[in-house]
Amino acid sequence: MSSLSAEERKNLIVRLRRIEGQIRGLQRMIDEGKYCVDILTQISASRGALKKVGLKVLDSHINGCVKNAISKENGDEEIIAELMNVIDKFTD
Amino acid sequence: MSSLSAEERKNLIVRLRRIEGQIRGLQRMIDEGKYCVDILTQISASRGALKKVGLKVLDSHINGCVKNAISKENGDEEIIAELMNVIDKFTD
Amino acid sequence: MSSLSAEERKNLIVRLRRIEGQIRGLQRMIDEGKYCVDILTQISASRGALKKVGLKVLDSHINGCVKNAISKENGDEEIIAELMNVIDKFTD
Amino acid sequence: MSSLSAEERKNLIVRLRRIEGQIRGLQRMIDEGKYCVDILTQISASRGALKKVGLKVLDSHINGCVKNAISKENGDEEIIAELMNVIDKFTD
Repeated sequence: MSSLSAEERKNLIVRLRRIEGQIRGLQRMIDEGKYCVDILTQISASRGALKKVGLKVLDSHINGCVKNAISKENGDEEIIAELMNVIDKFTD
Repeated sequence: MSSLSAEERKNLIVRLRRIEGQIRGLQRMIDEGKYCVDILTQISASRGALKKVGLKVLDSHINGCVKNAISKENGDEEIIAELMNVIDKFTD
Repeated sequence: MSSLSAEERKNLIVRLRRIEGQIRGLQRMIDEGKYCVDILTQISASRGALKKVGLKVLDSHINGCVKNAISKENGDEEIIAELMNVIDKFTD
Repeated sequence: MSSLSAEERKNLIVRLRRIEGQIRGLQRMIDEGKYCVDILTQISASRGALKKVGLKVLDSHINGCVKNAISKENGDEEIIAELMNVIDKFTD
């Protein structure tokens, strides 16, 4: 069902593992009473990294499922409406 | 150095642990070939949750360090410049 | 070249005229020394309104040019790369 | 009531006048059927310019009203709550 290739999946999982490490690092920073500005900088970095993962998934989704539905003229209206909905959420 | 109370830290760590779980969930979703739109929805949720953690840290930072520096007229210019810098990053 | 219908154009121009009025209102607010928080609230509203215009243009672009290029298998790779690029800018 | 200096006001009004021109330009682009991607690029630029105006107003607000309320221990809790509220809106 997913349009991600094996290599893309591997690459995304590596990125997400790194983000998971950052989130654990944030817990440590808070636990150890680190300076708030350093915590906020780290949060911005993690959000940025998550955004990049999202853009990669979106790219693959458009090049896979969306393109496919349009080519086959099969459910393309629904899939584009769904795509717009997810872009809307993503730009919040 | 941090201006977070013991209770605030505990609350933030609980939130971050939940986000950590979401990031692990994302790795599973990608590994299992879940639908891209569901992955993107989950990424938006995690970014939103991280933003909320950030706003709580920012609130505590302003009510603590920033307020303190201004009250004591000690380093308030630097701390406000640093604050603006972190808000700028945070709004990206 | 545009994929916007006559009705969509009219609707978008009405929205943009309203945003133009808000931007002029902002100049007045600043000139008259209005409270900064009210100015910031108005700026957030205008940015939100601009985002909505952008999402409508994006929707029309995907349903028009992008769909067309994919259907005709003509320049679809370039148009999707360009689309991802504009979504990336748009989510900043 | 505003914490903006005469020079800051002038600078902000110049910026807003430029943004107003961009918004009028957008209406023309839509009216003339310009390419959607060019319209979207222009919208992103205007939103970015509005964000910069907002950060300048926020900076002045923090260095003026917020600092003042804290120094005089007069209404600082309310003003910080209000500040957090406006930052929250601004990061949407």
